[in-house]
Amino acid sequence: MSNLRIPGPTPCPPEVLQAMSWQMINHRGPQFAGYLNEVTEGLKTIFQTRNDIFLLSSSGTGGLESAIVNTLSPGDKVLGVSIGVFGDRLASIAKTYGAEVIPLKFEWGKAADASAVAGALKANPGIKAVLVTHNETSTGVTNDLASIAKVVKSAGKLLLVDAVSSMGSINLPVDEWGVDVCVTGSQKGWMVPPGLAMVSVSPEAWKACEEAKMPRFYFDFLKAKKYAEKGQTPWTPCVSVVFGMTVAIKMMLEEGLPNIIKRHERIANMTRHNAIKLGLELFADEKYASNTVTSVHANKGLDGKLLNKIMREEYDVILGGGQQVLEGKIFRIGHLGWVDEKDIDAVFAALKEALPKAGFKGA
Amino acid sequence: MSNLRIPGPTPCPPEVLQAMSWQMINHRGPQFAGYLNEVTEGLKTIFQTRNDIFLLSSSGTGGLESAIVNTLSPGDKVLGVSIGVFGDRLASIAKTYGAEVIPLKFEWGKAADASAVAGALKANPGIKAVLVTHNETSTGVTNDLASIAKVVKSAGKLLLVDAVSSMGSINLPVDEWGVDVCVTGSQKGWMVPPGLAMVSVSPEAWKACEEAKMPRFYFDFLKAKKYAEKGQTPWTPCVSVVFGMTVAIKMMLEEGLPNIIKRHERIANMTRHNAIKLGLELFADEKYASNTVTSVHANKGLDGKLLNKIMREEYDVILGGGQQVLEGKIFRIGHLGWVDEKDIDAVFAALKEALPKAGFKGA
Repeated sequence: MSNLRIPGPTPCPPEVLQAMSWQMINHRGPQFAGYLNEVTEGLKTIFQTRNDIFLLSSSGTGGLESAIVNTLSPGDKVLGVSIGVFGDRLASIAKTYGAEVIPLKFEWGKAADASAVAGALKANPGIKAVLVTHNETSTGVTNDLASIAKVVKSAGKLLLVDAVSSMGSINLPVDEWGVDVCVTGSQKGWMVPPGLAMVSVSPEAWKACEEAKMPRFYFDFLKAKKYAEKGQTPWTPCVSVVFGMTVAIKMMLEEGLPNIIKRHERIANMTRHNAIKLGLELFADEKYASNTVTSVHANKGLDGKLLNKIMREEYDVILGGGQQVLEGKIFRIGHLGWVDEKDIDAVFAALKEALPKAGFKGA
Repeated sequence: MSNLRIPGPTPCPPEVLQAMSWQMINHRGPQFAGYLNEVTEGLKTIFQTRNDIFLLSSSGTGGLESAIVNTLSPGDKVLGVSIGVFGDRLASIAKTYGAEVIPLKFEWGKAADASAVAGALKANPGIKAVLVTHNETSTGVTNDLASIAKVVKSAGKLLLVDAVSSMGSINLPVDEWGVDVCVTGSQKGWMVPPGLAMVSVSPEAWKACEEAKMPRFYFDFLKAKKYAEKGQTPWTPCVSVVFGMTVAIKMMLEEGLPNIIKRHERIANMTRHNAIKLGLELFADEKYASNTVTSVHANKGLDGKLLNKIMREEYDVILGGGQQVLEGKIFRIGHLGWVDEKDIDAVFAALKEALPKAGFKGA
């Protein structure tokens, strides 16, 4: 088994993989309804919310699309806070469906500044919603969502959050912070294969939904709600991934959310510490460095793409590369979901040998 | 193991379930690219096409939405041929995204009439596309798509086909018949759990795509094409279901498409024959009765809902019910994918006992 250290899909525990191989059942029968309700209740604990939660059969990006199209109308002004690829993506979706996106971009590697968000909202009183990425997977930065949320909610705006790579790994109390739509994906901290997006919908988001005119069918929250009431989904769901979620959620509730959050913090600290010890430079602003993915500069002679190739071919360790303008400029180590110290030790044992082979002169 | 006889999700062979439990791999690495290419090539054989084929991580309904939004613009006139729930659904999607749908509805239980399609196209020369369900799962009727396609293509219209519950089970030569977008789903004849929609896109559909103005992001064919060229999908795919597909497609190619089609025909004939022998009445027009799902009248005293409950609770046989106006009026027996004579024998052994318990007086 490879040491899969990309920021999703993440490795799955054997119990979860076992559940993935359960035989099919009727997705409109009582047994499946039981599973769906169990998963939904577990998710509410981890989302720390009383809002509705729906399981959509899609990737996280599908979940992001659902957040946009169910709450907005063409022509609506939205603030697109972005610190990387996924912030840009969320804004792109809104633009595609006809929203007027006011971009608020920050340098990649840095976090968004809540006071800049406040300034943008003041300068553009017509803004209806703010789009924010909680954890920017492409740069390894976690935004200070608590502060941003305070600004957004005190201005009375809708808060749509991409929490795909943070929820279930990094603290995100949806109700306390007032997140209106919060989106995550099964292949991240949940230790489950990809296939499901999970979204929470606040009463305020439901109010927006009533007026939202962007077209939607597959991702329609109203249809999801109608079927959720009978323990179903409107369309045939990704049944096996729901099976996997039943097992994973149980494991997560047993470990306990505070422990999960602490474990991710501990592993992330260890990863950053080990990287620095090898002479590597971290890409993300240290104050906001992510606890689910660590981004590392490919500098001091290091060929980042070659490094990932050597790591894969010679050491069976799979790392993430840089995306878009960061291609070849950084590499990334995923440490979310089913991960412990030994996995990270193995990464660094391999890196120690592989770095010089890939040209690194910084040790 | 239940005898799962709904028209999808269908039971999966052990080899496929085993593949569903493979550990996660990098969805942007060479190994996954190999799987994706292998599945795509296999699908081309079974679709009998040289068109592009994409795997979308969604249910079949998501695939239907992709067919609409990638080829049409708001205001476009389309002919919505419908013989049941799924024909109506396809038309609904088009309407939701702003198409002007001219409905062409036929009595449930009957097939669409190709000459009526010709008439509608003549009466409405502004029609751009025709939406048709190949196999209507809700009524158990298979349309004569060859004849309809001839009419549509000779009129120079785009042909968008819901083949969710037919492709891979009933003959549908995409290139020969000229289907422009053809949609199916992994949980039907493919013997794989739900999670993937598979769509083929003809050169003519690509031309329409260039001008199509309906908004799309998650389901965008252009993004799918760009990533398919490097053996990837634009968004994190439902990896486990792709694993399952690699195994299932291999099994299907070994059995051979003509044999698969013949097996479905044989099993369907057997099902219909056995139903009649028990004194049941078939709901679908016998000339167009589906080879993947058989619909049966709940009449002669029979309480259809009670029957399904008894079959499930006492015999562990899971049947389909009637949908919408057919609720309680019919029941349905699915026989697609991984199915042989023994499965159907078991259904009828149970039905023989269960029918009188559910009030049936027709024997």
